[in-house]
Amino acid sequence: MNLNHPGGVSARYRRLLDPALREAVSVLHPDGARMAAFAMGWADVDGRARFGDGGKALRPAIALLSAEAVGAPAESALPAAVAVELVHAFSLAHDDIIDRDELRRHRDALWKAYGVGHALLTGDALLALAVSQLADRPEAMPYLSAALIELVQGQSADMAFEDRPWQGPGEVTLDEYAEMAAGKTGGLLAAAAAAGVALGGAPELADRMWGMGRDLGVAFQIVDDILGIWGDPLVTGKPVYSDLRSEKKTLPVLAALASGGQAAHELSDVLGATDEDSVRHAARLVEEAGGRERARALADRYVSSALGVLDEFLPDAHELRALCHSLVDRVN
Amino acid sequence: MNLNHPGGVSARYRRLLDPALREAVSVLHPDGARMAAFAMGWADVDGRARFGDGGKALRPAIALLSAEAVGAPAESALPAAVAVELVHAFSLAHDDIIDRDELRRHRDALWKAYGVGHALLTGDALLALAVSQLADRPEAMPYLSAALIELVQGQSADMAFEDRPWQGPGEVTLDEYAEMAAGKTGGLLAAAAAAGVALGGAPELADRMWGMGRDLGVAFQIVDDILGIWGDPLVTGKPVYSDLRSEKKTLPVLAALASGGQAAHELSDVLGATDEDSVRHAARLVEEAGGRERARALADRYVSSALGVLDEFLPDAHELRALCHSLVDRVN
Repeated sequence: MNLNHPGGVSARYRRLLDPALREAVSVLHPDGARMAAFAMGWADVDGRARFGDGGKALRPAIALLSAEAVGAPAESALPAAVAVELVHAFSLAHDDIIDRDELRRHRDALWKAYGVGHALLTGDALLALAVSQLADRPEAMPYLSAALIELVQGQSADMAFEDRPWQGPGEVTLDEYAEMAAGKTGGLLAAAAAAGVALGGAPELADRMWGMGRDLGVAFQIVDDILGIWGDPLVTGKPVYSDLRSEKKTLPVLAALASGGQAAHELSDVLGATDEDSVRHAARLVEEAGGRERARALADRYVSSALGVLDEFLPDAHELRALCHSLVDRVN
Repeated sequence: MNLNHPGGVSARYRRLLDPALREAVSVLHPDGARMAAFAMGWADVDGRARFGDGGKALRPAIALLSAEAVGAPAESALPAAVAVELVHAFSLAHDDIIDRDELRRHRDALWKAYGVGHALLTGDALLALAVSQLADRPEAMPYLSAALIELVQGQSADMAFEDRPWQGPGEVTLDEYAEMAAGKTGGLLAAAAAAGVALGGAPELADRMWGMGRDLGVAFQIVDDILGIWGDPLVTGKPVYSDLRSEKKTLPVLAALASGGQAAHELSDVLGATDEDSVRHAARLVEEAGGRERARALADRYVSSALGVLDEFLPDAHELRALCHSLVDRVN
């Protein structure tokens, strides 16, 4: 696969996807269309066209590759590809409001650019357009619908984690983390894969691909967590150690604490302090306690599980395999 | 129809609807379920059960009555009834954030009770649950999907109206108002009626019922506007003249200005002032210029148009007719 972008879709898919996405958004009220174009990375805040950063379009790639993997033309899964990309944009718009994140892909978050009310409504509009893509496709729509529920459930769980302690009664377990990530991140990957094969004419494989996508999502989220602590700020667009500073319940930290050694004990004392030295010290302790390594190993295990489904049911899906690998080897 | 509530559903429908709504919401994360229960009027902010105010459940009533009108049992349209009520709750939750309305049905708005982030996510959850009701029903899902798009388009138009002048170049025309109301208010009534007959086994009537519901929505919104100026605050739960004070582009005022007489000229001078005397004076001028009367007449015309569809295609739908009438005769 000739990737324009690490983990991204090839130029061939971009030629299919981009016009379909733009056509979907074009039905909106002019104000909604302008804000949606900003959210999709097509325009600046003042409406001027931007080129070259429509994001990774990973979820559409999964949908299109899944259709091809069952012998159908990529086009057959285009409505699903458009739908999952629109849902992804919806979720980013709303998550940034919820998390008060001011930056997204090195630019203002949608709510920073246009205000909370407009950003909320633009998110709703993107979701409505997504649903309309598959409204008359009962072989695919239930997977999109299930992903929407997974998305809100995962987001609810993630928000509830914030109020729970790092350790002791009520602590967040690794299993709970995996369940949250499977929903919040995996649901949409799962819908892309399942709807992709269903629209490609192999609905009997859709439930398997759904499970594959959820596993992939857990791996993807763990890699995100690793990058959220140790990723290059210039590449990720987030400050170094940002997830540690905000005390987010991420897998490397949970795994470090669960290791129970000396570094884990020290780590539990230093968590919560937000000065630069403490945060840097915490990051070192997470590594010493084996949190980074364990996170990496867990991500690999989930990817292996996802690849196992492909091996069993779609052994010739080489491009899809390559995409799965690229998700855990990415640097942003 | 034995109404518990003006414009509301009979006890018979409540027995069908309420358990189905509660079952739908029960799948949510406990935090989401708690907030959804508040939004639906089932619980106080601290989670204690409340009785007797699940709202008017007007949209579900339209779905259930529409199925019965084509000779099917009401139960056949239950997924649509649940879906439209959930979408309605979603839209109220998000609209209150957008409009910064602090009160809803004499209680705190959802965002006042739980914060913007939680209210936004609860709205998303209600929408996801709504979509799941009809995800595998391709005869009904496209109408729900179309209503979601109408809803956001209408809300976008309504927000854009705020920035436009009352008169002169760029003024909001009565036709634009009707189009906004047909989307924002009519879309969901239209989906209820169309999905109701489709699930009741008469999909060939669904497009007609869609048009019927949009007309009904315009009438409903005009009556809302009338109540927003002259409604009894104890009944509507809003302060007297509230829509005039907030300079909302409502039909009585637009119609008064369009009349072009002496009162209209005076009105255009006094609009924008928010002191008590000016607002009271503006309300009087809207009446003098015939705005209230013209709004009423326009609402009646849209209801007649809606009833015309019933006369032609479902002449025996007496309960549905009665419900349509009750929408424009309501006092809250």
